[in-house]
Amino acid sequence: MPNISARAAQAPASPIRRLVPLADEAKRRGKKVYHLNIGQPDIPTPEPFLRGIRGAPVEVIAYSPSPGMREAVEAMRAYYAEWGIDLSPDELIITQGGSEAVLFALNVVCDPGDEVLVPEPFYPNYNGFARLAEVEIVPITTHRREGFHLPPREEIERLITPRTRAILFSNPGNPTGVVYTEAEMEMLVEIALEHDLFLVADEVYREFVYQGRHVSVLSFPEIRDRAILVDSISKRLSACGARIGVFASRNPQVMDGARRCAMARLSPPTLEQYGLIAFMADPRHREIVAEMVDEYRRRRAVLCRELGKIPGIVFREPEGAFYVMLGLPVEDAEGFVKFMLTDFPGEETVMLAPGQGFYRTPGLGRDEARIAYVLNVDDLVRACSLLREGLELYQEVEERVRG
Amino acid sequence: MPNISARAAQAPASPIRRLVPLADEAKRRGKKVYHLNIGQPDIPTPEPFLRGIRGAPVEVIAYSPSPGMREAVEAMRAYYAEWGIDLSPDELIITQGGSEAVLFALNVVCDPGDEVLVPEPFYPNYNGFARLAEVEIVPITTHRREGFHLPPREEIERLITPRTRAILFSNPGNPTGVVYTEAEMEMLVEIALEHDLFLVADEVYREFVYQGRHVSVLSFPEIRDRAILVDSISKRLSACGARIGVFASRNPQVMDGARRCAMARLSPPTLEQYGLIAFMADPRHREIVAEMVDEYRRRRAVLCRELGKIPGIVFREPEGAFYVMLGLPVEDAEGFVKFMLTDFPGEETVMLAPGQGFYRTPGLGRDEARIAYVLNVDDLVRACSLLREGLELYQEVEERVRG
Repeated sequence: MPNISARAAQAPASPIRRLVPLADEAKRRGKKVYHLNIGQPDIPTPEPFLRGIRGAPVEVIAYSPSPGMREAVEAMRAYYAEWGIDLSPDELIITQGGSEAVLFALNVVCDPGDEVLVPEPFYPNYNGFARLAEVEIVPITTHRREGFHLPPREEIERLITPRTRAILFSNPGNPTGVVYTEAEMEMLVEIALEHDLFLVADEVYREFVYQGRHVSVLSFPEIRDRAILVDSISKRLSACGARIGVFASRNPQVMDGARRCAMARLSPPTLEQYGLIAFMADPRHREIVAEMVDEYRRRRAVLCRELGKIPGIVFREPEGAFYVMLGLPVEDAEGFVKFMLTDFPGEETVMLAPGQGFYRTPGLGRDEARIAYVLNVDDLVRACSLLREGLELYQEVEERVRG
Repeated sequence: MPNISARAAQAPASPIRRLVPLADEAKRRGKKVYHLNIGQPDIPTPEPFLRGIRGAPVEVIAYSPSPGMREAVEAMRAYYAEWGIDLSPDELIITQGGSEAVLFALNVVCDPGDEVLVPEPFYPNYNGFARLAEVEIVPITTHRREGFHLPPREEIERLITPRTRAILFSNPGNPTGVVYTEAEMEMLVEIALEHDLFLVADEVYREFVYQGRHVSVLSFPEIRDRAILVDSISKRLSACGARIGVFASRNPQVMDGARRCAMARLSPPTLEQYGLIAFMADPRHREIVAEMVDEYRRRRAVLCRELGKIPGIVFREPEGAFYVMLGLPVEDAEGFVKFMLTDFPGEETVMLAPGQGFYRTPGLGRDEARIAYVLNVDDLVRACSLLREGLELYQEVEERVRG
């Protein structure tokens, strides 16, 4: 049997992937599993978006232009203009979800072996993109006790080497819920200018801000040439499976590079672009997203209240996105998550994402887990009560094993 | 301004991309352009597929599982079973079009710097995928006078180096229309076994066969461990913009590698998978595709008849797909294509794809062009008559310049 490539063979399976079969098994045994482990929103996709797809005036589902349909690009331009960001039609392309936009960004700014700084904990799929692009991720460690805000400038600067090409960050943050302050963004801008780096901001959660104000990477004229925006409608239109994302930059070379990447894969999905066009043409589109964000704001309040009742759990209220990183009163969060799926008694249980998968630095995050508040308020209350029971039971079992 | 990566900066723009603005310009001047240059079918997407999307029972357009929805995988299994190919559910995944399946294949079988043999002329997007995967394409030159069939075994074997990992080929061929004989496929199988290579077959046009019989790469039990199928519904369902492809192999390591690639980009588009499921559930699905193939058969006959009337054009009847590679009575086919867009008089013109973009070996294909017969019979007749007029005029102009 011929060997597959080293890069494909060595790709790490994320911890969550090891746990998914256990959740499936629990469900086969008839257990209800509250999934707090994935960022898959439960809120219905807005009607105008669905209508745009269902009523798309096409006889042939043809390729769209590689950079997206002209009208889809216009729809996204109109969106950013509403947020005070003016982009020309050449300054953005439609991608197959935010995922592809991240992959394009790494390909455009890095050659194989180059390095990218990424604040950790970070979205684990960045590891997959980095592997595909043969790019090294160098973590900037941030801490729960500081609400995962950035460390001082010198701490970031001492990670920079001649191979560093960019700082990639999600803002608002997944899994941290951090929203970088204007001062933090200014610090990143200064570092980028001084060390000749690109700033790649994943702003997929840009409207999900509950405290503070979101500052886009595209709002700094001094880094017009080095700012890259990665975006997606997946979360704010509750349409993760539509695979509509955005890659934007005011640097024409960067956009040329991105367009070349886009040509290689021919076309983003066509019908979903009609969904986007129809959604943006709806006069209520801003309201619809605002209502969705309000729902997450309510969930966040309930979740934080309920988590606050659980002894030993440590966390700070997330400022944005729809995640919260918890410190758990256990040594091995993955062991606890496993326990909840395999040994926790009763008809219901809860699934979290173990913290380690979000860190690059070995050993970090072992006692942490991420919660995505993508369930309705009643389910969140129930899930928190299961979490509390589970922790009590698990601690008892652990003590018995030790004793 | 910081530099973009060498790989993004050096990516060659294909000749066709240089010509597209000229076609746009011609249309702005009010000219009708018959597009014989792109493989975008004009035949309506089958109703059951569209209905499956429009009626998809979803409130939330959620991520699908990374390897595709279970029912979509089942639909594709049923399809292959109809063609005598039995695959287990673990032996195929749904990809974002055939494009992504090619990219996954290169990533799974090659590390950066490895080589892949590809019969030329070949589908130019392979260049883009190879660049993204940092893989070197080594051409196996084939010739128009031999109908682009493969050269003798020793000619292929002397291209193999210690870094060669696979032979990648499209069968039926784009742009050649070749359908490899059983003997040719057996030769490839023997080479793969003897030199420990993978065979990656792009069978996107597998049903478009007018002469001879298509032999799938998956029909050889002796290369269960080294056969990879790349496929797509784009052409046979006239749904290029649906972005539904397939990656299949019976080698579990290969499938693990492909699944890891798939996880990195989260999910293929969800609604289009409902289209696929609905289409395969329709009892007429085989008939619908067969009717479509019949339409191409008719077009091929008309096209070959009309081309045969044009003095100086050399070609062999294509055995499959919906392309024909022409030898033109000009020195520089790209110059001729440009002439047709910029200088050809009258209200209509025709656009072909210059041959050079399909070759890796410098200088080859200069006097060739590819025609995609994706227009109805009347338009094909008209386009051929424009081609004839254009060639006469161009030859006159060329002589005048020389004289």
